[in-house]
Amino acid sequence: MYYDELSMTEFSKRVKQKDLVAILPIGAVEAHGPHLPLSTDSLQPEHVAREVAKKLNALILPPFRYGMCSSTKNYPGTISISPESLRMVVRDIISELVRNGVKNIVVLAGHAGLHHISALKLAAQDIVDAKKVKIMVLSDYDIAYDLRGKVVPEDDGHAGTIETSRVMAIRPDLHKARGKKSENRIPHFRVFKNPDKYWANATNGDPTKASALLGRKVNDYIVKALVVHIKLMLRAPE
Amino acid sequence: MYYDELSMTEFSKRVKQKDLVAILPIGAVEAHGPHLPLSTDSLQPEHVAREVAKKLNALILPPFRYGMCSSTKNYPGTISISPESLRMVVRDIISELVRNGVKNIVVLAGHAGLHHISALKLAAQDIVDAKKVKIMVLSDYDIAYDLRGKVVPEDDGHAGTIETSRVMAIRPDLHKARGKKSENRIPHFRVFKNPDKYWANATNGDPTKASALLGRKVNDYIVKALVVHIKLMLRAPE
Amino acid sequence: MYYDELSMTEFSKRVKQKDLVAILPIGAVEAHGPHLPLSTDSLQPEHVAREVAKKLNALILPPFRYGMCSSTKNYPGTISISPESLRMVVRDIISELVRNGVKNIVVLAGHAGLHHISALKLAAQDIVDAKKVKIMVLSDYDIAYDLRGKVVPEDDGHAGTIETSRVMAIRPDLHKARGKKSENRIPHFRVFKNPDKYWANATNGDPTKASALLGRKVNDYIVKALVVHIKLMLRAPE
Amino acid sequence: MYYDELSMTEFSKRVKQKDLVAILPIGAVEAHGPHLPLSTDSLQPEHVAREVAKKLNALILPPFRYGMCSSTKNYPGTISISPESLRMVVRDIISELVRNGVKNIVVLAGHAGLHHISALKLAAQDIVDAKKVKIMVLSDYDIAYDLRGKVVPEDDGHAGTIETSRVMAIRPDLHKARGKKSENRIPHFRVFKNPDKYWANATNGDPTKASALLGRKVNDYIVKALVVHIKLMLRAPE
Amino acid sequence: MYYDELSMTEFSKRVKQKDLVAILPIGAVEAHGPHLPLSTDSLQPEHVAREVAKKLNALILPPFRYGMCSSTKNYPGTISISPESLRMVVRDIISELVRNGVKNIVVLAGHAGLHHISALKLAAQDIVDAKKVKIMVLSDYDIAYDLRGKVVPEDDGHAGTIETSRVMAIRPDLHKARGKKSENRIPHFRVFKNPDKYWANATNGDPTKASALLGRKVNDYIVKALVVHIKLMLRAPE
Amino acid sequence: MYYDELSMTEFSKRVKQKDLVAILPIGAVEAHGPHLPLSTDSLQPEHVAREVAKKLNALILPPFRYGMCSSTKNYPGTISISPESLRMVVRDIISELVRNGVKNIVVLAGHAGLHHISALKLAAQDIVDAKKVKIMVLSDYDIAYDLRGKVVPEDDGHAGTIETSRVMAIRPDLHKARGKKSENRIPHFRVFKNPDKYWANATNGDPTKASALLGRKVNDYIVKALVVHIKLMLRAPE
Repeated sequence: MYYDELSMTEFSKRVKQKDLVAILPIGAVEAHGPHLPLSTDSLQPEHVAREVAKKLNALILPPFRYGMCSSTKNYPGTISISPESLRMVVRDIISELVRNGVKNIVVLAGHAGLHHISALKLAAQDIVDAKKVKIMVLSDYDIAYDLRGKVVPEDDGHAGTIETSRVMAIRPDLHKARGKKSENRIPHFRVFKNPDKYWANATNGDPTKASALLGRKVNDYIVKALVVHIKLMLRAPE
Repeated sequence: MYYDELSMTEFSKRVKQKDLVAILPIGAVEAHGPHLPLSTDSLQPEHVAREVAKKLNALILPPFRYGMCSSTKNYPGTISISPESLRMVVRDIISELVRNGVKNIVVLAGHAGLHHISALKLAAQDIVDAKKVKIMVLSDYDIAYDLRGKVVPEDDGHAGTIETSRVMAIRPDLHKARGKKSENRIPHFRVFKNPDKYWANATNGDPTKASALLGRKVNDYIVKALVVHIKLMLRAPE
Repeated sequence: MYYDELSMTEFSKRVKQKDLVAILPIGAVEAHGPHLPLSTDSLQPEHVAREVAKKLNALILPPFRYGMCSSTKNYPGTISISPESLRMVVRDIISELVRNGVKNIVVLAGHAGLHHISALKLAAQDIVDAKKVKIMVLSDYDIAYDLRGKVVPEDDGHAGTIETSRVMAIRPDLHKARGKKSENRIPHFRVFKNPDKYWANATNGDPTKASALLGRKVNDYIVKALVVHIKLMLRAPE
Repeated sequence: MYYDELSMTEFSKRVKQKDLVAILPIGAVEAHGPHLPLSTDSLQPEHVAREVAKKLNALILPPFRYGMCSSTKNYPGTISISPESLRMVVRDIISELVRNGVKNIVVLAGHAGLHHISALKLAAQDIVDAKKVKIMVLSDYDIAYDLRGKVVPEDDGHAGTIETSRVMAIRPDLHKARGKKSENRIPHFRVFKNPDKYWANATNGDPTKASALLGRKVNDYIVKALVVHIKLMLRAPE
Repeated sequence: MYYDELSMTEFSKRVKQKDLVAILPIGAVEAHGPHLPLSTDSLQPEHVAREVAKKLNALILPPFRYGMCSSTKNYPGTISISPESLRMVVRDIISELVRNGVKNIVVLAGHAGLHHISALKLAAQDIVDAKKVKIMVLSDYDIAYDLRGKVVPEDDGHAGTIETSRVMAIRPDLHKARGKKSENRIPHFRVFKNPDKYWANATNGDPTKASALLGRKVNDYIVKALVVHIKLMLRAPE
Repeated sequence: MYYDELSMTEFSKRVKQKDLVAILPIGAVEAHGPHLPLSTDSLQPEHVAREVAKKLNALILPPFRYGMCSSTKNYPGTISISPESLRMVVRDIISELVRNGVKNIVVLAGHAGLHHISALKLAAQDIVDAKKVKIMVLSDYDIAYDLRGKVVPEDDGHAGTIETSRVMAIRPDLHKARGKKSENRIPHFRVFKNPDKYWANATNGDPTKASALLGRKVNDYIVKALVVHIKLMLRAPE
């Protein structure tokens, strides 16, 4: 299940598996309010990766737990790397997977910031433009937010009801506190040196409404949907 | 113990701890013969980091499990990233630690290749030239190889007696096979596209002599020595 | 009204104007179906810039009519530049505005692609992190799409009803044909070398529903909203 | 005549035109004394491009009105971009023209600074080294200065007699004042942070001798000569 | 006289010399016809540097004998480095001179190609923009070509009468043959992959008219003029 | 013997020589205590290159006398260039040698610092990965230090007995003083802004034990060993 638990000899055999998928979980070290750990955006895609890997007999690559954080970049604990660094590392990793004969790759991010996702997609674009390989890049929140306006309000976001619930389901021991309903008030379209001035708590939504039960439902929803998307990729002509 | 298991609020407090040390384990996905897993160079520094962190009440950052591999770059399973990517990511991470108020940083690599270590040291150099912080960069093999010519032959190396023993001590379930005595015959000073032609088995030394007992001794030796070096750093004027 | 129609002497005086705003229109050369010109994404922000400049006595910089196009990159006529090139040029321009004493800058893009907007925001971020200046970065579609689900269907998009209407209002002579209702069927999350295979006509929406009247309404809506946002920026403490 | 006024469908047909030439006008936002607008170096090549395009049925690309300015970089209004930015954007544009099937490209600059022209030629060199295409890179002053020592003194230069005359011919409304005879006294071979200290007025030559009539003559001379050079390129074997 | 023949201790003293000038000779490995050595552009500035150093008690840095060659890049023997490499190395060297307390620097190139000189000047610009130091960048041909139209024809150029004469004066043993009058026929303004097709002999001018006597005169002329320019720099306020 | 003393015509012939080897000497401008010149690391590989070239009828390229210095970077006189600059220049030079038909290249450095050697090997790696050529990269100290523990103590190092002896043998006039036994006390694994604080004299070893006789022996030893290594390279299949 874990790519790097194989030996070189085992890997040689395993890579020949029909429809082998490799999943690269991309996390972040990012402030998520006082109620969630800095690893929030790592825990979620790594959980999804494990569940998906079980269903598809996929390989999981060593997670890369660093990302590019914009609005939370000044909060305590956040470690934000540049989009260039992120793009280069992910490009290198994908490129080596292709060299090794892997044909289907899923880059699965927990963090869904604009520059973060842009960097990941550019890394993938660099490779698909040059090599024959199928790649999918997404944040699990691209799927989770299907549920906004349904199980949670439309404006649920960072460290809000869904995210808190998912952490409660995955690592209840890291759910630190009840949290507090808060709102991101960063003025539209502005680019700031200190966006945190406009954002109390690094929370956008209502973590007090969260539950492990809801978290499990959301996680299951994501896993099922992602499995469908990956199967579509495997069947696609290119 | 793990940096990213803290919440932003907890981190704010923890960073004020006197003599707080943050350890960044750097691994690799690299072929280590048929007897060891691709994660060999990740397991070792992560183990050392945990033991050191216990003794010094240090924080461990999310491991970065990718490195720059030269001589093994064409073996199955190896994922080699460029030295620029490595340097940029590590520089970004260290830079953010400094922004967060961390004053003592240990970058601890499992892999000890020339370009790999150079990239890590350049990353650290970039930061110490600009910011007030103490940084140490090393491979745990810089310490482990003190024992060459003592408990193992002088030419013990990659996936050899020491490395195999250490994996047996840390993750016995990932010790796959007995391995085979082999030797790196890459001609001196040459730079090759395909160095693997000169290197059977991706092994340099004799893994058949390895034991979990020896592994534990080596690991303990490293942990003790590293603790001493870190304490020296904490006491140094700059 | 146009920055570069001033002489150096005139500029020296003009830059002292209270609450002077400089607007940098960013266009693109991009396929927009058989019914719209390649300049579609240039015409729109340049029109908005002129209307906003009239109301706020702002200066308009020479438009930069090149952008980063992902899904249309293989259509005839598209000229897609790299996000690095875009970011560097825009950063240089903004940086020079700051050197010249301009304190309020609006970067207004017609094209709204992920990498395109990311590049523009990163350029602005580079400057606000280092210099004292207020910057706003947006696509006029960030405002126009408020109207989706109201005057046009939710899924109206590239070269669809709104965009066609706006071109009909701004440059009726460049409205070439009625166009054809089409849909972007690029599979979710995939990154492709040839996304055009999944996208007939480079059109996403129904251009046959477009009218100059609707175009004028949308343009007016954008101009009014943008003026409000800019006034908020002028009044903000930083 | 304008590349981006075509739709994608029209462009597909137009690109098949025998001996199709695409002209990329490169301007600048640069101080040209109190008598000329900041757009001086944009107006001129754009005028020439239009006249040449009429004669050769060429396509004109959206002008890029930013350049690298050395000696005027500190004057009010000047916007100087780095040579890397300039090279990258122009390389990207040319590269996309080649992808689109354009075989003959003229990069026509108004500004003629060393680093500016070097950047443009390097951009072109990058492409001709890799792709089959004919490219010409010049400033229209490479031709205009044939007339120095004839209709104007040998030392006529930036914002001097010729340049003022040309603006008077092209955009008489932007001829702001009579100007003043001045001279660039930057010591030979020195590289300065503040070259403007040695250069009053950002003028090198005598703008008081300028006339619209002379401007028209110079413009005609350039257009004719450039048409000849382009025809030579079209007829050349490579 | 030679910077690097000093020990660190000697250098510490020497750097305090009033009006100390450091000269960095930049050569090239470039085809100069069948009659001159590949080192032609290195020999000349190194000779000038020595003569100037004698007169001004200056220090000569280790010559950098590699340059960026455009039109001769495909001839046998030419070694053309990229302008980025050239700029970076020269910037690093100048930067270190400034760190060492050197206040007056002359970068003296033998080769005078557009991109080559642009790279050298950009390197110097990078430093003067950030540090307090006086820098002069020139090719000795910027001075030598004062003599065109006087002692040699206006169109004397690469490997022509002046250059051949100078080599005959400096290193007669490396004057290999009489050479042959030839002309560079590269079409104006074109950028070529293979410019050598239009240029027989890598010679532009008439080497058969050369003499050691003329070479000595030209060399003396350059040395005297350069000494004057350097003295002007030493006396200038900045 | 010297590459750039050939004319282009002579080079064309010479490059066809069977088993032609080109040697690129890489020096440094680096403090080597009060007893040795800043050129110490240039003199040595240039001497070795000459002796080897005589034996193998090899060509010597113009030396590149600048390197990346870490621990001596703050001493007077040292000129340390970045590893990127070094890598780029050396890559460009090697690449041009390959273009010129040279098949066997030796990059011979005097300085042996980690980042310096890493940069040189990365430059070579870039080329061997893309072109058919044999390259060897080494410091002559990779060979000289075979003699540690034999003719000199194990810990002889920078500016110590061997290095001082070699300079005495090669350029006795540049042996400035007896020197003084000193030791590098930079704490292990630390990366410092000012490593010189821990290192008196920029000397590591005992220069007072040096002699020209020992220097000649060491030089001869290196020359012989290097000739053997080069012959092995010539005979190797790739």
